[in-house]
Amino acid sequence: MFPGDDSGALAGPPAAPAATAVFTTVLTEGPVSRVALARRLGLSSAAVTKAARPLIDLGYLHELAATERTGPGAGRPASPLAVRADREFFVGVKITADELIGVVCDLRAQVRATARRPLTDPDVAAVLTDVGRLADDLFEAFPGDRTRVRRLGLSLSGDIDRTTGLVRYSPFLHWRDVPLGRLAAQRTGLSVTVENDVKALTAAEHWFGEGVGAESFALVTVGTGIGCGLVVNGRLVSGSYGVAGEIGHLAVDATGPDCHCGGRGCVESIAGTDAILAQARDRTGRPDLTFDEAVALARGGHEQVRAVFTRAGSAIGCGIAAVANLVGPTRIVVSGEGLAAYDLFDSHIRASFERQAFGAAARCPLSIRPLPFEAWARGAAAVSIQSLVVP
Amino acid sequence: MFPGDDSGALAGPPAAPAATAVFTTVLTEGPVSRVALARRLGLSSAAVTKAARPLIDLGYLHELAATERTGPGAGRPASPLAVRADREFFVGVKITADELIGVVCDLRAQVRATARRPLTDPDVAAVLTDVGRLADDLFEAFPGDRTRVRRLGLSLSGDIDRTTGLVRYSPFLHWRDVPLGRLAAQRTGLSVTVENDVKALTAAEHWFGEGVGAESFALVTVGTGIGCGLVVNGRLVSGSYGVAGEIGHLAVDATGPDCHCGGRGCVESIAGTDAILAQARDRTGRPDLTFDEAVALARGGHEQVRAVFTRAGSAIGCGIAAVANLVGPTRIVVSGEGLAAYDLFDSHIRASFERQAFGAAARCPLSIRPLPFEAWARGAAAVSIQSLVVP
Repeated sequence: MFPGDDSGALAGPPAAPAATAVFTTVLTEGPVSRVALARRLGLSSAAVTKAARPLIDLGYLHELAATERTGPGAGRPASPLAVRADREFFVGVKITADELIGVVCDLRAQVRATARRPLTDPDVAAVLTDVGRLADDLFEAFPGDRTRVRRLGLSLSGDIDRTTGLVRYSPFLHWRDVPLGRLAAQRTGLSVTVENDVKALTAAEHWFGEGVGAESFALVTVGTGIGCGLVVNGRLVSGSYGVAGEIGHLAVDATGPDCHCGGRGCVESIAGTDAILAQARDRTGRPDLTFDEAVALARGGHEQVRAVFTRAGSAIGCGIAAVANLVGPTRIVVSGEGLAAYDLFDSHIRASFERQAFGAAARCPLSIRPLPFEAWARGAAAVSIQSLVVP
Repeated sequence: MFPGDDSGALAGPPAAPAATAVFTTVLTEGPVSRVALARRLGLSSAAVTKAARPLIDLGYLHELAATERTGPGAGRPASPLAVRADREFFVGVKITADELIGVVCDLRAQVRATARRPLTDPDVAAVLTDVGRLADDLFEAFPGDRTRVRRLGLSLSGDIDRTTGLVRYSPFLHWRDVPLGRLAAQRTGLSVTVENDVKALTAAEHWFGEGVGAESFALVTVGTGIGCGLVVNGRLVSGSYGVAGEIGHLAVDATGPDCHCGGRGCVESIAGTDAILAQARDRTGRPDLTFDEAVALARGGHEQVRAVFTRAGSAIGCGIAAVANLVGPTRIVVSGEGLAAYDLFDSHIRASFERQAFGAAARCPLSIRPLPFEAWARGAAAVSIQSLVVP
């Protein structure tokens, strides 16, 4: 994380392991009593009380009114600890090839304001200027206390080093080794985190969505690229060499097409939206066919175009089954802009998953659902929240 | 783990988290000073000293002679803590379809005695009798103190619940829901752990082999079955539904053969030793061909049989690349009895891995090496050691 120019004011919560554990648990799992926290975290009650004290003093946590406990030990009042969602706010911005999408979230990742801005120039300086302008737009739209916004999370696809805020490689912006965290902190005066967009979305689901409390969890995104964020043994998987969750480049068809990555028969080379469009153009002999037209043809019953979507759904299902067979997540969420054609995919993804999931791995529930536009930006904000809670 | 009939004597080391962390670190990483332990584990020096005390008193750890430190702080003597390998010994037994393979290991998983016994009857009672006899053989061959052997680790392929010692399903013994841990504890008087054989082998590599200190690590075994043990974020992956590491059932060929699992084009349906033999028989028109004969034909230059091994190596390489692309292990060890034909596989495994590994994932080193016969049994002993150290 890169501190902004008012870093002196960024005292933030204490960094001791017990405080971090207490803060994380209360934030992600809702109001929790000290007794339950002690049991959950393997700490003494005294240690929980000690860890919670500065979090309460700094306004991040507060005690709910004492309630009568029921069940064993009934009668002793318990005062659950809860998060003050308005204690601090976070800007999240997803950078795409042609647009910036931004949100302001509270500490519980509830969206409080949204804004968008077209991206006209992929040059680093131009993008930074637009990020700054988008932040101004968001502050204008944000109904809360502007002085409580001190952190900015950025996300984009590509190879990102979260710890240093470095964009190692962004294929669509043609960036290499851009120190985006440092530059954006200078430009905005906010403390900045940078993360890969799929990992950021996974972080949001892990802390604030379907992945809460799951020891393992997977989020698969379907679009031009096909990506996957993985939580295993309670933590996001980042890969020893910076590569993880590359479900789009699993080989599922030995006689399939060559992929831009150098592989053959990769999921993305069959089921990415560009790949689907190329196949549909080929089958119809219409080189100017758009993706929406291909979807319309398939929905209208065009056999050969339907077969392209069927094959794509099967490839995605094989990739998802590979995730289930290898790491056995508790649940898998499938989402992304490619799911606009959801009705053409859904049953083929499921059929292929069920065929290839090994034994009890088939019991892993799939949530296949579209992704609201601001979810990607909220993911970026969630990473910023994590950088506050887990310094 | 199931305590044996002398469980009263099994006081064992303390179960406090700090003691477990100190014991694990000293055991797996060799002699470590208290200062280094405190830094590594995020504990105070006082906490390390307090945690180590009972481990020293019980004879599990001892202090090496004080040595002069060099570098910063030079001059203050440091007395590294080390494990007493002879403090306790562990029997490990791998159960195969036709043989029991046993070892006695010390606390550092060094093999001190080995024995084998043919398995004549897959009936549970008969196997238990043979396990008891093998244990007697091992005690006879073991040159150390018999009274220090109090634990037995069993491993076999199939669906095993390590926490309850239950064999849910063993395909080759045709067992379902056999409480092997409890039964073996009754039969031998030892405290028993039961684990899947591939996971046990992975545990041995993680604590005592190439995986020491790795946050993530994979072990792939090639044979009749093709399996994989995974360590991610420092812990063995067990799968939310009991399924993990099923690399043999990744779909890598959309037009490949049907697999016994119900899938299509699974790695195992192409590259398992049974699958290779079936394809070689088909290509040669010799239904009585043996695996060794197929290997000899391929080595002799028989084009069509060579192609079977080439295809198998490619399928295995795709499976390994899937592991690298999804979880990004620090290193991958490929081993197993199927690698007797190592020379026919090796280059195809590597070529296919390199083609399919995405970007920097290709930097993950592959160690392709044969597996000494007692390694599987040592894996079972390693799980037993873990049950002592992490109660």
